[in-house]
Amino acid sequence: MRPGLILKLSSPDHPGIVAKIASYVASHSGNLTEFSQFSDQLGKKFFARLEIDTSGLDVTVEDFKTGFGTLGRSLGATWHFRELPYKMRTAVLVTKTDHCLNEILLRTELGELPIEITSLIGNRDNCARIAERAGLPFHHVEMDGPLREKGFTEIQDLLRAQNVELIVLARFMQILPDSFCQEFSGRIINIHHSFLPAFIGANPYKQAHERGVKLIGATCHYVTADLDGGPIIEQEVERVSHFHSPNDLARLGRHCERAALAKGIRYHVHDRTIIDDHRAIVFPD
Amino acid sequence: MRPGLILKLSSPDHPGIVAKIASYVASHSGNLTEFSQFSDQLGKKFFARLEIDTSGLDVTVEDFKTGFGTLGRSLGATWHFRELPYKMRTAVLVTKTDHCLNEILLRTELGELPIEITSLIGNRDNCARIAERAGLPFHHVEMDGPLREKGFTEIQDLLRAQNVELIVLARFMQILPDSFCQEFSGRIINIHHSFLPAFIGANPYKQAHERGVKLIGATCHYVTADLDGGPIIEQEVERVSHFHSPNDLARLGRHCERAALAKGIRYHVHDRTIIDDHRAIVFPD
Amino acid sequence: MRPGLILKLSSPDHPGIVAKIASYVASHSGNLTEFSQFSDQLGKKFFARLEIDTSGLDVTVEDFKTGFGTLGRSLGATWHFRELPYKMRTAVLVTKTDHCLNEILLRTELGELPIEITSLIGNRDNCARIAERAGLPFHHVEMDGPLREKGFTEIQDLLRAQNVELIVLARFMQILPDSFCQEFSGRIINIHHSFLPAFIGANPYKQAHERGVKLIGATCHYVTADLDGGPIIEQEVERVSHFHSPNDLARLGRHCERAALAKGIRYHVHDRTIIDDHRAIVFPD
Amino acid sequence: MRPGLILKLSSPDHPGIVAKIASYVASHSGNLTEFSQFSDQLGKKFFARLEIDTSGLDVTVEDFKTGFGTLGRSLGATWHFRELPYKMRTAVLVTKTDHCLNEILLRTELGELPIEITSLIGNRDNCARIAERAGLPFHHVEMDGPLREKGFTEIQDLLRAQNVELIVLARFMQILPDSFCQEFSGRIINIHHSFLPAFIGANPYKQAHERGVKLIGATCHYVTADLDGGPIIEQEVERVSHFHSPNDLARLGRHCERAALAKGIRYHVHDRTIIDDHRAIVFPD
Repeated sequence: MRPGLILKLSSPDHPGIVAKIASYVASHSGNLTEFSQFSDQLGKKFFARLEIDTSGLDVTVEDFKTGFGTLGRSLGATWHFRELPYKMRTAVLVTKTDHCLNEILLRTELGELPIEITSLIGNRDNCARIAERAGLPFHHVEMDGPLREKGFTEIQDLLRAQNVELIVLARFMQILPDSFCQEFSGRIINIHHSFLPAFIGANPYKQAHERGVKLIGATCHYVTADLDGGPIIEQEVERVSHFHSPNDLARLGRHCERAALAKGIRYHVHDRTIIDDHRAIVFPD
Repeated sequence: MRPGLILKLSSPDHPGIVAKIASYVASHSGNLTEFSQFSDQLGKKFFARLEIDTSGLDVTVEDFKTGFGTLGRSLGATWHFRELPYKMRTAVLVTKTDHCLNEILLRTELGELPIEITSLIGNRDNCARIAERAGLPFHHVEMDGPLREKGFTEIQDLLRAQNVELIVLARFMQILPDSFCQEFSGRIINIHHSFLPAFIGANPYKQAHERGVKLIGATCHYVTADLDGGPIIEQEVERVSHFHSPNDLARLGRHCERAALAKGIRYHVHDRTIIDDHRAIVFPD
Repeated sequence: MRPGLILKLSSPDHPGIVAKIASYVASHSGNLTEFSQFSDQLGKKFFARLEIDTSGLDVTVEDFKTGFGTLGRSLGATWHFRELPYKMRTAVLVTKTDHCLNEILLRTELGELPIEITSLIGNRDNCARIAERAGLPFHHVEMDGPLREKGFTEIQDLLRAQNVELIVLARFMQILPDSFCQEFSGRIINIHHSFLPAFIGANPYKQAHERGVKLIGATCHYVTADLDGGPIIEQEVERVSHFHSPNDLARLGRHCERAALAKGIRYHVHDRTIIDDHRAIVFPD
Repeated sequence: MRPGLILKLSSPDHPGIVAKIASYVASHSGNLTEFSQFSDQLGKKFFARLEIDTSGLDVTVEDFKTGFGTLGRSLGATWHFRELPYKMRTAVLVTKTDHCLNEILLRTELGELPIEITSLIGNRDNCARIAERAGLPFHHVEMDGPLREKGFTEIQDLLRAQNVELIVLARFMQILPDSFCQEFSGRIINIHHSFLPAFIGANPYKQAHERGVKLIGATCHYVTADLDGGPIIEQEVERVSHFHSPNDLARLGRHCERAALAKGIRYHVHDRTIIDDHRAIVFPD
């Protein structure tokens, strides 16, 4: 990851908006190394992501960021700067299965995901050994039956204490309370083991087998209070046939889940996603 | 298409069933050029498709087929023989859009679909010119509003008169009456412009745009009284992004629709599908 | 296709280049509806494609285009404007097989390819009937053996006389002379029936069968004097297996060929491609 | 993995061959749970893979296997029985990069690969830590420059001593000597980081970048003395664009490599592959 700045912005669409933003960068001798934009002609909205080489800036990065405010406000924009290099403080929530967790660990080691895992949190302790092997803290939070509410409070306390920027639900088999979704809005990523909006809810591979679909999939999405209805970041599919039992579908689906989740996290931590109501604008790499 | 016989069979699973069937073929000096089978361990059912070179048969093809009855009945099987080469008598039902119709005509000319199109039937006359160019009869059947019931009766009469074996709904924008579905059960193929079971019903591309999915698709399926719920034969997907308007999705989706429908028809007319309740066993080629 | 202007540009990379270009557009009240750019960090080159709504321009489109020259020259850029809507004058060269030709005709009718086909030219007359049906001129040019050179001269004369902007080799089974490639450089698109650079040359499906590959493909590329070595615009693949004979591969490959060629032409006629030496920058839609 | 037997067979094609094989199984009350066969009409060869539930056999498994010899020999067949459940003794050879190694470990833990890893062998010691964490023996074999021959001898000794059935080259950056290939013929699986036969040899991602391909891939194949020319088991591709640097291609390619290698190994250890000269018959699951 090159040093520099990422600027992510959304605003109402304006004539000349690209010129204004790019001119601001150029006026301080910033060098645009990447510029992705999307003018939503239907919604009259504008979205952009800029990657800026700041090595030649004629002001400090702090001043550059502050100075953008005048323009940003005049555009009625929402924007966000990210200084590179950085690592996003990330908590991973798990239950029993570990393939998604292992994928995250593997990609992090490969340098594909610039994250710092603050801890693993599980409502089961199945993944404790993996945490230990990886040298990561593991918190086992009991939340069965009557302990559910208390459990979520405990998790939220942990996340706050760890100053977490991203929460990944790596096959965490619990529905988050609304208050949880709201507190960490736009910072929770889930992997659902179906090609949404098909097979919402429990046991999607069983549902897929019964329906006799010829492709199965997985969906990485932001979590909102609307179960399985949050903005989609990435989807993967795999071809299947009558030959495959529900167990086979689960096996083949794991591959989709791992791939979709890894891509989704990557896009998020590289600030390649912009949430637009219940959709996600994604500028993939 | 090589001369010979296709045998399609489904039955309860029995020990020795492959041996019995293959032995029958061998006992009359038939040569198995292709043998696909599926033992459904969950449902305890057996499905098979055999392609038999009959050039060395020691009986007539007719006797070979008749002689199989004893074995077939003892297995409690349902079976079907098809003599090759053949062309399946097929009617294509359309409304306004013609991309699926054109795909069928194109693939038929390329020799990929062994069908004989008996006629095109439209509840609009938009495709009449294509029929004319292709030298095919076109029947315009009025069925708006109060004419609906009468229209379907007229179509059913046409299909019977033409002794049709297959009815393809090539973006025919009408829901078939139950009696229609029952009369031609297992012989009606539809193309739905979404990745079922996602986006059932009208305007799937608009639904897909609103949901912000990252892949769109098309589904070729048998038509039953259960709208968009019939056995799936083939599905195709295409990657999309926020960039694509509903019109773009429709454009990209047309490609999926054409591909899925063409493959689905091919599998059906080559007897590569076996309907098993609400799923389809498909042995693709 | 919305009215407006497409600007396509390549230049050495400069700091502030996006700001300069976007500012020029904004300075005349042009509205950027689409802006794709690529800063090649390795080659220190800059590529961009802009789609501009010109309805609010404060100068004529002609003056807008002329006025860009000062900036363009100062950037050391090569650029090209295209006024929308337009249809690209296109000749299609064929031999015997017609699936790629039919795909082009079909997509043109569907409104997916804004081209005007000036004529079909064939070194065989197999496609004459299709031309007739489509109401297009067909030129049969004999070029076997000793007639080859004369044949190409005749074709080049036809293309010049028809003032052709694009030449599509739709399974035209002849190697173009260097002079031909040079005269129409950047305006000839070919479909090669393999996943280049695998299986260069003749009979790629036979080669693929012998090699036992598990995926076959097709490649749409610009034609240069380097056989099968020109800049790649689009590639498609299809999964295959040992089961498939060379004929099956050819059948499945046709689907790839049709899809890759149609996409490649679309990208070209929408000015979504920029040739960069022996690669093509493609901003797909 | 269900208890039982896998029978893998190849032979000249015979009329009645399916009947004979299936009848043998049935004659001893074996139950065919899966039967895949391929009659190569071009090569006049027959290939089959049977999965047999042996719980009801009227002879011992040993006698069943022995008894097949009479039939097998009469067919001029080559065949192989595998008793289930089993774990294949497997050595993994590595150099520096570990993503393929980690994929193998991960899939093994998930129960997707029935293998027992006897040891990791590296010509660098980069992967020693992974071996330690996984509780596996690691052998660092020096083989630079003049040590090459001695190194390979050492490796071959290790493989013999460990009684290895499968050798996986998990990005092992050494060309195997011919004698090595011959000794372990049909038991060495490699992952090549390109879509073979494109980009044979070194640095395929750099080659792919220079060529400007729109899809990159990975190929899992058996190793023969013919470099990158052995029978292909599985191939995967990923869409790329001009946007991607060689490093990006390597990153995206890792995903293909991991997927293709994992599938290839799975097919091999489940006896789903039959080598036919320089191609592999693969019955995937």
